Formats: sequence, structure tokens, C-alpha cells
Amino acid sequence: MDKQDKTTLIVFDGDLDKAIASFIIANGAAAMGKKVTMFFTFWGLNILRKDQVVPVKKGFLEKMFAWMMPRGPEKLGISKMNFGGLGAKMMKYIMKKKNVATLAELMQMAKELDVEMIACTMSMDVMGIKEEELIDGLKFAGVATYLGEADQANINLFI
Amino acid sequence: MDKQDKTTLIVFDGDLDKAIASFIIANGAAAMGKKVTMFFTFWGLNILRKDQVVPVKKGFLEKMFAWMMPRGPEKLGISKMNFGGLGAKMMKYIMKKKNVATLAELMQMAKELDVEMIACTMSMDVMGIKEEELIDGLKFAGVATYLGEADQANINLFI
Amino acid sequence: MDKQDKTTLIVFDGDLDKAIASFIIANGAAAMGKKVTMFFTFWGLNILRKDQVVPVKKGFLEKMFAWMMPRGPEKLGISKMNFGGLGAKMMKYIMKKKNVATLAELMQMAKELDVEMIACTMSMDVMGIKEEELIDGLKFAGVATYLGEADQANINLFI
Repeated sequence: MDKQDKTTLIVFDGDLDKAIASFIIANGAAAMGKKVTMFFTFWGLNILRKDQVVPVKKGFLEKMFAWMMPRGPEKLGISKMNFGGLGAKMMKYIMKKKNVATLAELMQMAKELDVEMIACTMSMDVMGIKEEELIDGLKFAGVATYLGEADQANINLFI
Repeated sequence: MDKQDKTTLIVFDGDLDKAIASFIIANGAAAMGKKVTMFFTFWGLNILRKDQVVPVKKGFLEKMFAWMMPRGPEKLGISKMNFGGLGAKMMKYIMKKKNVATLAELMQMAKELDVEMIACTMSMDVMGIKEEELIDGLKFAGVATYLGEADQANINLFI
Repeated sequence: MDKQDKTTLIVFDGDLDKAIASFIIANGAAAMGKKVTMFFTFWGLNILRKDQVVPVKKGFLEKMFAWMMPRGPEKLGISKMNFGGLGAKMMKYIMKKKNVATLAELMQMAKELDVEMIACTMSMDVMGIKEEELIDGLKFAGVATYLGEADQANINLFI
């Protein structure tokens, strides 16, 4: 496979606006025929969380972390002017009115376009997030896997 | 054109410090003979706003968004220690004393170096920003145009 | 040297979580045999500061800046949920319990893996940071040096 045929994104920030930007780029690249790999790490993992509580065994700090962090696309804030969630609500309202796809829809599209989504196992360990708390269809791997993909890609972004 | 002859930057954050960094990289690359494309999206659009109010027709939420977001290089805050604008003032004061170019000057230089500046039309639509509210000399396009450029570049950054 | 043999990172943010991510990527790439260059600019310089006060001559604003910014890996906050340093403490506590390397250890590893660390001289000038306030083993250079390296690399990230 030619280098020009791959694109990788590291999704580090778990903000709604950056998540939307990530998936718009990923889906755009995939629609152009690229093999796209998204590597979700640190706060980016929150994008992949199921919105319901999944009963898993956790330590006290892991529970606290899990409780304080947003669970899935509907709960994310925006990176600026969030005002305790009001900014995110406003952005979602406007995007709906303008018929722009929601984050959940963009994620569904990414699946259909065979965008590869990798959850960073080291971050999951640190944040105490278990596989069953994340959405289906993910791959679980570490930084070496990401670097292997990025090495063969010509567009590599850290978002 | 050789791949090594192009550079692209996505300017997502509208903070003064990140805006300055973006233009320093863009101008540096252009001065080295690269074709540089800057793609301004989400909060990054604020860098391109004219500092005066331009009378355009807007809905209520669009007006609110426009009013809350900074209008142009002089109004931007910094990403850390901004303290309601004090940090940005301090940084600008120091940069002036040290004879570092201001953001407005860096933007002027970018124009003279033929750096291509693209305003993301989807973000403009969501944020309710009209073409006449942005500075002159821009190109208006979407993510596909950015991806086309990035595909031919060897330095691609998301800032 | 082949293009595929180089990796560059711009470390702009001085947050603990982003600093850890930067060094994990840098060390991973170096371990795979790449020549890695990290370019520390703006808040990223704080990662490189010695944790003790170094007596250097500074102006009033430079002193204020230096005093308000974190000095070295132990003092950095995290980019989200920091709660005045509590979040950073919690993250460090968890990482220790999970036997994940600390930032200081990751930086030591980077040195042993011959990762090249460049402190941005323009940022140092603006922030009033002197060479003797930063850790040993750094190179001091500007954006042109970074661009020269990035031009020959195939993975270039802005963190």
C-alpha cells in the first residue's frame, strides 16, 4: 500500500468540538479512499464511552475519575465558552438547525467507512476504563501500533 | 510539484499564542520556499474576523455567538494564564518590547509570502459568520479542499 | 537518511498529560529506531525548567511570568479537571500505582534514547527564560531549525 493511502489521527482531547473536527477529517479522508486510523488516548477515550453505566469492578480513584469524566458523545463539553455545558448545548442546537451531522452520526458514518478506531490501552489502564465500558467495534492497542500506522501514512495529526 | 514543497496547518484554536505560533510556522515554511495552506476552522475563524462590527443579517443565536467570540487579532486571549485578557495584554506588551512581530504583522507577512488562507465554510455556517465579516484575501472551502492539499504536503499540523 | 527515519514533535502545551503523551510518542518512535526531534515552544518550555530557582537577572514582567508558570515536571497541571493541582496529583498517584513511568523518568529515557530536545529561543526570549534555568542537554534554536528537521520527517505532530 502506498504511503499516500493512509491517514492517522491521535484524538487526545475529549471536547465535543475537537471530536467533531476529528471525525469530519477522518470521514473525509476515508471517503477519498484512504485507510484511516484514529487512536483515542487520554480524554479522547471519553468519546468512546457508552452513555449508560456499565457495572465493572473499580478502585475508589478509578470510580471517581469515571464519575467525573463525560460518558460518551452526548455528555462532552466544548473547548471554549462551554459555560458548564450551555455552550455545548448551544452548538448542538445550532448544528441540528443547520442540518450538520451530530457527533453520534459522524461516528456511525466512520464505522460504515471502515475507519479503524483504536482505544489506547495504557490510557484505559490509567483512567480505569474497561473494554466493556466502551462502544463496540474498537481495537485495543498501544502507542507502538499507532506509530506503525503513522509511519506508513502521509497525513498524521494530533488533535 | 514535489510533496516536500508543501505544508498545511489546520488552525482550530483561536488563542493568541497558538495563532502566533501558527503564523510563525507558516511564514517560516513559506520563506523556505514551500507552498503553505492554512485552514481556519471553528475558533480559528476568530483570528480572521474584522475588528469592527459588519452589519449582516443573523439569527438570535448567531448574534450571541458572534458577540461572545473575539473579533480579530487584537481581541484574542491566550490559552493559559489569560486572567480575563490580562495575560494576553502582558504577552503583547512583552513581545512589543522585545521587537517580536505582532499577530497582525505576522498575518500581513503571510499575505506577502502568498500563504494561502482558507476559511472553513462549514464552521462559518455553524457559527453564523458571513464572508464580509472576515478579512480580505481569503479562500472559502471545506474539508475536502484541505485534505487535497494535505495529501500533497509532507508537513501537516493541527494547531 | 530516509524520510521514514525521522519524527518531529512540537511541544507547545505545558500540561502534564500532554507532556507525558509527547514523551511516550517520542520514546516509542526512538525505540523503533527513528531520529526524534522535540521542539519545545511557549508553555512547553515549562517542562524543561529546573525545579529550583536559578538566580538570573530579569525584568519585572519576566520575573512575574517566571513566578506564575510551573517550574519543571513536578509542578505541571493537567489540561482538564486539574482543580488547582488536585487532578495532576491524582493522575500522578494513579500512574505510580499502575507502575507507569513518571514524566521525569520518561524524560530521562528520552535522553538515553538520544531524542533531540530543542528549546525555542524566541519563546525563551519572550518569556524571559534563560538557558541556565533549563535542564542540561538541550539544543537552543528557532523555528527554521525545526522546519528543517520536519521537512525530512514523515511523522510531524503539534502537541
